[in-house]
Amino acid sequence: MAATETARPPVQFQAHPSRYKHWKLTFAGDVATLSMGVDPGAGEREGYELKLNSYDIGVDVELNDAIQRIRFEHPEVRCVVVTGALDRVFCAGANIVMLRTSSHAFKVNFCKYTNETRLGIEDASANPGVKFLAALNGTASGGGYELALACDEILLVDDRNSAVSFPEVPLLGVLPGTGGLTRIADKRKIRRDRCDVFSTVAEGIKGKRAVEWNLVDGLLPLSKWNDGVKERARKLADSVKARGTQGIELEAIQPVETPTSKGRKFSYTYVDFDIDDETRTAELEIRAPDSCAENAEQAFKEGNAWWILRAMRELDDAVCRLRMNHLDIGLVLLRCKGSAATLAKTDALLASTDHWFVRETANLVRRVLKRVDLTAKSFYAIADGGTSWVGTFLELMLACDRSYVLNDDDAKVQFAITPANGGMFPMSNGISRLATRFLGTPDAVSTALATKGTFDAAAADELGLATFAPDAIDWEDELRLALEERAAFSPDALTGMEANLRFAGPETMETKIFGRLSAWQNWIFQRPNAVGERGALTCYGTPHKADFRFERT
Amino acid sequence: MAATETARPPVQFQAHPSRYKHWKLTFAGDVATLSMGVDPGAGEREGYELKLNSYDIGVDVELNDAIQRIRFEHPEVRCVVVTGALDRVFCAGANIVMLRTSSHAFKVNFCKYTNETRLGIEDASANPGVKFLAALNGTASGGGYELALACDEILLVDDRNSAVSFPEVPLLGVLPGTGGLTRIADKRKIRRDRCDVFSTVAEGIKGKRAVEWNLVDGLLPLSKWNDGVKERARKLADSVKARGTQGIELEAIQPVETPTSKGRKFSYTYVDFDIDDETRTAELEIRAPDSCAENAEQAFKEGNAWWILRAMRELDDAVCRLRMNHLDIGLVLLRCKGSAATLAKTDALLASTDHWFVRETANLVRRVLKRVDLTAKSFYAIADGGTSWVGTFLELMLACDRSYVLNDDDAKVQFAITPANGGMFPMSNGISRLATRFLGTPDAVSTALATKGTFDAAAADELGLATFAPDAIDWEDELRLALEERAAFSPDALTGMEANLRFAGPETMETKIFGRLSAWQNWIFQRPNAVGERGALTCYGTPHKADFRFERT
Repeated sequence: MAATETARPPVQFQAHPSRYKHWKLTFAGDVATLSMGVDPGAGEREGYELKLNSYDIGVDVELNDAIQRIRFEHPEVRCVVVTGALDRVFCAGANIVMLRTSSHAFKVNFCKYTNETRLGIEDASANPGVKFLAALNGTASGGGYELALACDEILLVDDRNSAVSFPEVPLLGVLPGTGGLTRIADKRKIRRDRCDVFSTVAEGIKGKRAVEWNLVDGLLPLSKWNDGVKERARKLADSVKARGTQGIELEAIQPVETPTSKGRKFSYTYVDFDIDDETRTAELEIRAPDSCAENAEQAFKEGNAWWILRAMRELDDAVCRLRMNHLDIGLVLLRCKGSAATLAKTDALLASTDHWFVRETANLVRRVLKRVDLTAKSFYAIADGGTSWVGTFLELMLACDRSYVLNDDDAKVQFAITPANGGMFPMSNGISRLATRFLGTPDAVSTALATKGTFDAAAADELGLATFAPDAIDWEDELRLALEERAAFSPDALTGMEANLRFAGPETMETKIFGRLSAWQNWIFQRPNAVGERGALTCYGTPHKADFRFERT
Repeated sequence: MAATETARPPVQFQAHPSRYKHWKLTFAGDVATLSMGVDPGAGEREGYELKLNSYDIGVDVELNDAIQRIRFEHPEVRCVVVTGALDRVFCAGANIVMLRTSSHAFKVNFCKYTNETRLGIEDASANPGVKFLAALNGTASGGGYELALACDEILLVDDRNSAVSFPEVPLLGVLPGTGGLTRIADKRKIRRDRCDVFSTVAEGIKGKRAVEWNLVDGLLPLSKWNDGVKERARKLADSVKARGTQGIELEAIQPVETPTSKGRKFSYTYVDFDIDDETRTAELEIRAPDSCAENAEQAFKEGNAWWILRAMRELDDAVCRLRMNHLDIGLVLLRCKGSAATLAKTDALLASTDHWFVRETANLVRRVLKRVDLTAKSFYAIADGGTSWVGTFLELMLACDRSYVLNDDDAKVQFAITPANGGMFPMSNGISRLATRFLGTPDAVSTALATKGTFDAAAADELGLATFAPDAIDWEDELRLALEERAAFSPDALTGMEANLRFAGPETMETKIFGRLSAWQNWIFQRPNAVGERGALTCYGTPHKADFRFERT
């Protein structure tokens, strides 16, 4: 029943416009155009062709890269037009053969990453205020329309052929799981019966009905397409302020990879991770330097070398690699280290300035922290001697499933509260990690936030930040047992458990996408009716017809 | 990989205290005691023993019955003590062998029903204000502790042995899926790291730590147990008003079953359903009578024969049977019929009186409508000649995935708005069906609510209540095509799609339980690590050790 994946090289999460195979990123004043023209022969793996602008993980890594570059390298951009470079087709969605020949784990990870990329578009729209216009020059099906749904506005060409569609349920027996079902219901707020109809009509909906049902915001005949798109992009650009004039360049993040006695180590500048194949754990470390930019101007001058930007981009790359390329790793042991003064100073700067570059960096910190929250591996913060949990680094502890804090006078474990802990970096549920943690005891949030200066392990324990705070005598045994125990559990049960425990409190479109929609999609991605020998995903595009077992579950 | 179920007779959803095998329901003034003493030999199916107060569907049907009877037959009750009749064990949760030997579909349906029963406890607590005290006279594990979590307060005996626990993740490789993970995080608002620890410690947590972590509200030593429980029950009872003095008796709901050329028909007084095995559809009809009680006193005198109460209890039974006993049915065609005057009058009565019995009936209507919302089958409302969609019956249309409304002058299709449509019967998401439907166009809600008197198909279409409103010429073809199309889709994809489209708007603990927690549990219930040959659920209690595939997904 499980699909057999052909040999797959590790996924790389770095890209550069000069090397894009599938997108073209161009700029005209404050409007950028991101044009999709997927190279059918340039899939990440053998065995499928990326026809009709269908995509795989490689296409999405480039898209994610493009959005980051627009944010950091082109602060002049106020509107991004997302359009297609093919005739008649905007984008056919995720490649079916790729999905069919991917393992369950890969499918799930792929969907999570593509969901994060689309949420990244909405994040850019909400936060600095870069508006996105989906200019659908042809049919947008499945993931293609889901990409459009992540944009602020959707224009569809009115050529009697081009439609928007969700063919997943009728043709493939799976869901529009890249936010599609959630966004039609909760973002575009389309009537549920119309959502139902739309999601079952393979050929989709076009023309006036697409507008009437709010599936798209407007139609343009071919003859007025270029001008109309330009005009609309102009209006969107004018609806927001320019962020800046001169960007900074993002250099690629590339770890040095070295074999170790237990597995493999990946080292960046401020981040390392160390894979232990036998215990299926990874040690992940992030460090703050001793000195740092004192103000926005200095930070801007350092550009992509500014430590917090670089460290967070490294962490992001590390987390993506851990998820996709190290499936067997179940537990990540996180240590944060480095100068408390640097962390406090940097957080203060992130909180206070209105320099576009510093704000964009804070936006990136928020997104990377969310990526950690959403990673389907157990995270334990290991606060032993020499670790430092100040502000943004304390957020990383709060993103962990547990924290083990060494409570010993001889061990230097330092903590401090900064503005980073007061709501600068909300989780997907829309509230801060402290507020989520102390949902039942909101006073504990104010007590923590009122703490001044650095404090030690005992004080952290008192504030409720430690899950366990053993002394030096118990430390090793307790930790060893905890790690052994975690490693022995069913990885699936842990994934489900963590997905339920990490996001207490309010729900947002984002938590709905990862909680409800993704969980249902993962279920369907396991069902014989989708992936069995005669399942719809297996049979689509082959001479075989799907053959369902009709039990309703 | 799929478990083979031993032959299973259809599940019956009616029970009576005089025939309870697993519970004892006793009354002392305004305090009821519901004592669990499961008969190990009286499981619903062969092949497992209900040891240690573990439960199966039969145990839960009795529990649900008891809660209904307390509400209707004993309005004097203000507090219900839920306790155990065995020594040292309160309840060991759902029976493992039963789960292991059940099909995936049965497991999913079983969990949904038990979830609804537990939400029914919270509904009783919130609405008329019957308070529930879980008096844990011994260890409460898994579903046993989840039952306690549904109560307002939890007392645990302090005997050095008794604990509360979630052994699902560490021992069985599944989740505490009967609301457990959601309630510890979102109802008891326990810190996420403590939730994580608690959910991985098979032996559970007892004594002071259980109180400190808010897993229970209090401890009582054995010597003070009886008096202490009484005292706490007294306090809870005193915290709410008595509802009434004299109850009404609930008679069993039993359909007459007759074979038909296509399958089987089940007929109650106000409800029928008709199974068509070939097309895998069911026709479900509910009818309002020509005359009805004019006021609360008359309704009370009619007692359980009051039409709306009886009709809704019949609908509830029908929906439960459709879910559990007719798995192959994918589509339910719903028709509502009968006197608009009766419906309008009844809704007005349900809305206006403060008679406890009428209020309890309205509470039941709300719960039954929710059961329809949550049923994993497609529902189409078929508004053809002679159908009547007034108030509560219009809510049923709004609970459907689609509505087909015959727009023809010769066909009498009547609609009317009553207070039932204005928020009396909120969905699980906490808002009305109209508000959910028109999330994007809130004016449409006020327009609909402002409509006076009955109106026809064309007006209903104008108000946005019809998905499609064909005329008599197109009606048959359009309907036939729609039914054929739906019947051909993957039932799993439809389940996932509907679960995502039905609950736009806000999320509540209830939607989290059914959306997030249940979806993850369903996923895990399919995973080889749980149900495969060497899965944890398969191996538990056998000489075999679980053998996991450690990919994190």
